[in-house]
Amino acid sequence: MLEDKNQAKTPLSELGEFGLIEHITKHTKLSHESTIKGVGDDSAVLGSSEKQTLITTDLMVEGIHFDLSYMPLKHLGYKSVMVNLSDLYAMNGKAEQITVSLAVSNRFTLEAIEELYAGIRLACETYKIDLIGGDTSSSAKGILISITAIGKVSEEDVVYRNGAKETDLIVVSGDLGAAYLGLQVLEREKQVFKVNPKNQPDLDNYTYLIERQLKPEARKDIRSLLKELNVKPTAMIDISDGLSSEIMHICSKSNVGCKIYEDKIPLDPQVISTCEEFDLDSTMVALSGGEDYELLFTVPVADFEKIKGNPHLSVIGHITEKLAGLNLVTRAGQELELKAQGWNSLAND
Amino acid sequence: MLEDKNQAKTPLSELGEFGLIEHITKHTKLSHESTIKGVGDDSAVLGSSEKQTLITTDLMVEGIHFDLSYMPLKHLGYKSVMVNLSDLYAMNGKAEQITVSLAVSNRFTLEAIEELYAGIRLACETYKIDLIGGDTSSSAKGILISITAIGKVSEEDVVYRNGAKETDLIVVSGDLGAAYLGLQVLEREKQVFKVNPKNQPDLDNYTYLIERQLKPEARKDIRSLLKELNVKPTAMIDISDGLSSEIMHICSKSNVGCKIYEDKIPLDPQVISTCEEFDLDSTMVALSGGEDYELLFTVPVADFEKIKGNPHLSVIGHITEKLAGLNLVTRAGQELELKAQGWNSLAND
Repeated sequence: MLEDKNQAKTPLSELGEFGLIEHITKHTKLSHESTIKGVGDDSAVLGSSEKQTLITTDLMVEGIHFDLSYMPLKHLGYKSVMVNLSDLYAMNGKAEQITVSLAVSNRFTLEAIEELYAGIRLACETYKIDLIGGDTSSSAKGILISITAIGKVSEEDVVYRNGAKETDLIVVSGDLGAAYLGLQVLEREKQVFKVNPKNQPDLDNYTYLIERQLKPEARKDIRSLLKELNVKPTAMIDISDGLSSEIMHICSKSNVGCKIYEDKIPLDPQVISTCEEFDLDSTMVALSGGEDYELLFTVPVADFEKIKGNPHLSVIGHITEKLAGLNLVTRAGQELELKAQGWNSLAND
Repeated sequence: MLEDKNQAKTPLSELGEFGLIEHITKHTKLSHESTIKGVGDDSAVLGSSEKQTLITTDLMVEGIHFDLSYMPLKHLGYKSVMVNLSDLYAMNGKAEQITVSLAVSNRFTLEAIEELYAGIRLACETYKIDLIGGDTSSSAKGILISITAIGKVSEEDVVYRNGAKETDLIVVSGDLGAAYLGLQVLEREKQVFKVNPKNQPDLDNYTYLIERQLKPEARKDIRSLLKELNVKPTAMIDISDGLSSEIMHICSKSNVGCKIYEDKIPLDPQVISTCEEFDLDSTMVALSGGEDYELLFTVPVADFEKIKGNPHLSVIGHITEKLAGLNLVTRAGQELELKAQGWNSLAND
């Protein structure tokens, strides 16, 4: 689980709950004026504000959301923060604070928890987030991380899922499908390792895919990019369950239909080559893969000139009337109904 | 697990994650103006405010914090909200919103989750709380509930743990030790049931204790009571881990010592009689039992007249200089050093 097998192994029971909290939080630095009181009282205290407060929360469960045989704990900590920040950026907001609750079985040592927190802290430093509270507990089995993220947004800037209008363009940041393929590569290596533990995997062809799976970055930059471009999305969501599932959320909340063009879906070259190798359809992977943590949003068609050719953004389709339904236009020009095949964490057990 | 064994048993996988979220949240009513957007987008949105925002979070893990063989799911839902609200009241704040994250193994049906949410909703209605978001997931084993509560407090009203001064009086609301004894009674009945499942337990002598364990109430009323009395605590904490552990937090954060008088600790008659029956020391139970969710606070000695004789409040001691240490004055007049023997959830596995 840890890279250096000779490291100290301190049982958590040696510290107790308060000892562990103190140990974890003693180096916590706060970087937001709005964080008046962080860890160390019954609750955290945030300053009064003329802006609106955003609150989001996500669970990460061992064996359901991650497999520690190929997910290093530091990456797990980092990713569990990203998953939450992504939701705040999808509201066009700024992320400012998080609370972290942890349930761990007695197979985890203090050093393991420190690794996890090293990743959480790295995410906090990189994204300027204050860690302001949390809870720690034993679990009957495995590790579970529950993070709540708090952000700010002004009333004029907030973007919901329900504002998409007919003729609006559908835009996606970055590229899609890589995180899912990264998981497939790691799963395959795990099986190879089981059969032959001495086999040295050559992962050079999959570096981007594996990084997208193990160390995703939330799109903090899109908010400022859109401000610079003077574009305000009419609806926005982050892509955690796959493009298909997310566009359905926007269409259902906005009471509209959509048309997505297969040939416009942005794919990294490693996605295309690995799909060929694994005999997977790259469009299906982008539509249903999930865990991309890119942003999907709609903008008025009049804004096309402002975003056209921007290297961070791809226009992949447009909003239609509700009755037209949700459709994918294939490379061959055929129209197929979009189906949600997003990753369902409740069906996974 | 459910009272009516003939109820429907719908596997959660039949609904999927979004189906479950919709099912659970469709009757959600919002009661706070500050809740601009609850469930249904990437994050919740709260209004701007001249007050400070309070954030607290608590985990409840099956097998660690509760045992479903005697904790009905509805009570579990209710209690898991109380545990969080208690932390906001301990800041002298108002509680306004919660998010609820749930990890459940496939042994739980939709009807079981509905029971749990019935308790959560009852708590929300009773305490005027808006349920604004959450996450649901499978778990490898058992059920885990992670709740984050959000509240408001004005800058003048907020009470931290660190303001206690020498000569301040130490005050506690309600009475102590009952929740812990309730747990002992329920544990004993569980053992009796194992040996003789036909045995009908007679719990008439323990009704208060069992209610305190299964359906605790957070002390929302103390904030208004203190306002009426024109008393502002100098330090405050809620009693979740036992009086001893909580007074230590106040003293260590405030850099002071304390003297607690054994004969002043408020005990319900059922606590006294049940301690005799179980051959337990009632003072130890009050000091180390935990889960009372009463408030412990300090007030300037000049406020004594204002709180004297109030049926909700007991003065149990006073703050001393740090060097004097933390002491318990026994009924016999002997001084003993206070030791934290609070319930440690990390040593419990």
